[in-house]
Amino acid sequence: MPNTLSRASLRRLPLYMKLLARLVAAGQPNVTSAELAQALELDETLVRKDLAVTGFTGKPRVGFATRGLLAHLEAFLGVHSRKDAFLVGAGRLGQALCHYHGFEKFGLRIRGIFDNDPKKIGERVGELEIQPVWMAPVLARQLDVRIIILTVPAHVAQAVADLLVDAGIIAIWNFSGHPLRMPPTVIVHNEDLADSLAVLSHQLAQLDLSAPPAAKAV
Amino acid sequence: MPNTLSRASLRRLPLYMKLLARLVAAGQPNVTSAELAQALELDETLVRKDLAVTGFTGKPRVGFATRGLLAHLEAFLGVHSRKDAFLVGAGRLGQALCHYHGFEKFGLRIRGIFDNDPKKIGERVGELEIQPVWMAPVLARQLDVRIIILTVPAHVAQAVADLLVDAGIIAIWNFSGHPLRMPPTVIVHNEDLADSLAVLSHQLAQLDLSAPPAAKAV
Repeated sequence: MPNTLSRASLRRLPLYMKLLARLVAAGQPNVTSAELAQALELDETLVRKDLAVTGFTGKPRVGFATRGLLAHLEAFLGVHSRKDAFLVGAGRLGQALCHYHGFEKFGLRIRGIFDNDPKKIGERVGELEIQPVWMAPVLARQLDVRIIILTVPAHVAQAVADLLVDAGIIAIWNFSGHPLRMPPTVIVHNEDLADSLAVLSHQLAQLDLSAPPAAKAV
Repeated sequence: MPNTLSRASLRRLPLYMKLLARLVAAGQPNVTSAELAQALELDETLVRKDLAVTGFTGKPRVGFATRGLLAHLEAFLGVHSRKDAFLVGAGRLGQALCHYHGFEKFGLRIRGIFDNDPKKIGERVGELEIQPVWMAPVLARQLDVRIIILTVPAHVAQAVADLLVDAGIIAIWNFSGHPLRMPPTVIVHNEDLADSLAVLSHQLAQLDLSAPPAAKAV
């Protein structure tokens, strides 16, 4: 029942994968859900549930085979299937994402970077040259690119997304901050960097920031 | 029992807040958990639970007062308490974050930006001038800054974090990709942009990407 896995659970799978990769590298053959929970500061019941939903089962007392579980999670998340993407919006965030190497472990490869600013066209970002946005639909069809990373300003996000969906784009990783209206066949994943500030902000709100550093214990 | 709220729930609170702000602006006085759930594509039980844990209660049939709930969530997340932060690591991501305006709604203000690269020292990023990292501890004490946004490369992250914690830093928003070892009194929030790719990657793995665009329906 993979489809019942929540977004929150999906977001935790990379945490398990990182830990499992370290354990495999250290030569540890098995790990219990209690050990995973402790290392990741998660509730053990949650860990068991997360992994059960992906369909991997451990052995009583022994736990999970580290190598097997890692391979299973990688397959579950499709990390080995190549995912070509275009990045649209070559501003600071767009360029930072282009240089970010963490995406490769999910098989995501940025094959083109686009912007509307004539001054930026032709500039290089790593191995790519910034191209005009109007070329993106044609190139998406030619290169069979189905994913876009959208880092344009909010006020143009809908128009750019519409243009690209018409060209066969089926998944949008949306950093624009604009809530896109898309047909249900298009996967939209909205990213707002400020959202994770909520966690930090709440934790800080529990502390007394006016206390001197010496009394910083929670 | 605010402390029982999970990270996943905390991350959803900004979604409610954005929606509530739109409803308040549109003059809608009340909203039911069913309406919230539908608009945000969440499970209604989850919505009710999230809001109950923050301690806000709705009225039967009427639902939640939009304005009251928004103010309650803002207070719960401490968005109106000023949070001064230093950003350490003025690379592409660091500079992109410095220009990101979404943090202000959580009261987060970046008061200094630091880097080790002599070529960058003195360069301006918005209203700030990049300063050498060795000055950060002294300035953190002077300006009573307790939060850092860490955008340095992974291999120097621990050393930089240690330096700053000694200077009274109590919360680290860690973009370095390095899992920091910190005393339990320090709040560390690890951010890995690739983690949210897990959600997209899994959804894409459910699709047949080799199918022609015409057959793109899930």
